[in-house]
Amino acid sequence: EIVAAAARALADGTAIPLPDTSLAKDASPLKQSAPVAAVSPPSGAGAASLRGRRVVVTSGPTHEPIDPVRYIANRSSGRQGHAIAAAAAAAGAEVVLVSGPVALPDPRGVAVVRVETARDMLAAVEAALPADLFVAAAAVADWRPQAAADLKIKKRDGAPEPVLQLDRNPDILAAVAGRREGRPRLVVGFAAETDALLDHAAAKLARKNCDLLVANDVGAGSDVMGGAENAVHLLTRTDGAPRVEAWPRLDKAEVAHRLVARFAAMLDGGRA
Amino acid sequence: EIVAAAARALADGTAIPLPDTSLAKDASPLKQSAPVAAVSPPSGAGAASLRGRRVVVTSGPTHEPIDPVRYIANRSSGRQGHAIAAAAAAAGAEVVLVSGPVALPDPRGVAVVRVETARDMLAAVEAALPADLFVAAAAVADWRPQAAADLKIKKRDGAPEPVLQLDRNPDILAAVAGRREGRPRLVVGFAAETDALLDHAAAKLARKNCDLLVANDVGAGSDVMGGAENAVHLLTRTDGAPRVEAWPRLDKAEVAHRLVARFAAMLDGGRA
Repeated sequence: EIVAAAARALADGTAIPLPDTSLAKDASPLKQSAPVAAVSPPSGAGAASLRGRRVVVTSGPTHEPIDPVRYIANRSSGRQGHAIAAAAAAAGAEVVLVSGPVALPDPRGVAVVRVETARDMLAAVEAALPADLFVAAAAVADWRPQAAADLKIKKRDGAPEPVLQLDRNPDILAAVAGRREGRPRLVVGFAAETDALLDHAAAKLARKNCDLLVANDVGAGSDVMGGAENAVHLLTRTDGAPRVEAWPRLDKAEVAHRLVARFAAMLDGGRA
Repeated sequence: EIVAAAARALADGTAIPLPDTSLAKDASPLKQSAPVAAVSPPSGAGAASLRGRRVVVTSGPTHEPIDPVRYIANRSSGRQGHAIAAAAAAAGAEVVLVSGPVALPDPRGVAVVRVETARDMLAAVEAALPADLFVAAAAVADWRPQAAADLKIKKRDGAPEPVLQLDRNPDILAAVAGRREGRPRLVVGFAAETDALLDHAAAKLARKNCDLLVANDVGAGSDVMGGAENAVHLLTRTDGAPRVEAWPRLDKAEVAHRLVARFAAMLDGGRA
């Protein structure tokens, strides 16, 4: 029933009814400052087409080399990002998927650019612009080892254990959302958090200047990372205040289809 | 022709002829001290059965958590280790495969224990012993972050970038090969090196007290990591001196079948 209700709500362009318990469990101050609310029904609601739109999606983790055989990574199967690329292509968009290392097949009808590091991913995204829609679903590593060794680092008895000095990686979402020229009309970020989900997500929405943020709780027991399902919150801003919409737990492909319908409505709604 | 010759050589229990160039390119001093030579033809040559044998194989990487969403890993698809487990099962052995995170299906007829960290892998291996044969094909992370954070580490502007102090992980191969009681009769290690392959492999064979070492060059351009093929060197010791045998580049499943034939011959040859 929840799924059917959510589908009807989406088709109507209204908010999905929130289960009573969904925010009651959350001790976040956002509960008071940003009540869960409907996003404004887009004028083009019901039309889920992205025909004629150019879409760039990032997906998967990045791998940041320590040496030729070792790396730092974020946990990410790429399932949600790949599903969004596939759903956007199915909705008629021309899609470029910039993917870190994943064990997934390339989605149908999508141009896939495979990258390894955050810096490679940023370069590939910039090469794929301009676009109407940018969806930053990849779990980009925030840091990389300052200097990757050319040869495998060997263990040496008696030697002190190594210390990895980390450097900040480029922020791909902020870089695209902050472009003065060639900013995609709709920039969508993802936030995977283990704690204070809505606070962290609301802060990210504002800090990164994106239009829509998809937040998911990847804390212990959520089974989201690598799993087939996802339970997301959508965050948007209306007159500067964050608005939150809770979606039920759904298959990642279904989350993707609903997100794409939302993106299409937002792009259509913003048309003159 | 090389493959056919190699197959004949294996069946005969003699060494595979080395291409003239295979060591000429290697500036290692091992070239002089350890000429490539045949291993002694095992008495049970030709019989590739592991019926009645208990085999423990490790495969894949380990993931060492930095926080709930980030980790350090070694590059490893698990293809070679999984293929060895499958080949051992096909040869009649009772096989336990202790696997780090991989994107591979469980091999048929094999009991699979999934683990994440090196410490988990060691515990699972020790729980799976005793065994006649232990094959350490996993790419175990040598180090782990000293303290994994319970919550996702947040970027903070103005704060210094984080430093990861690493701790040494347990050495699973050395722990099993060095057991005073319950040491498997045949302990096989793997060495993936980017430079000085044979020197590093010979040192590892001696240091870890294993009976056979499978060395592969994972340097730039080798395409071994994650690929379908592998070109290995087998190192054994005879009277304390390392002996090296070069195998041609083969599909990883074929490498696995030939290794299992060798293991069976060595176990049979060592019988009273």
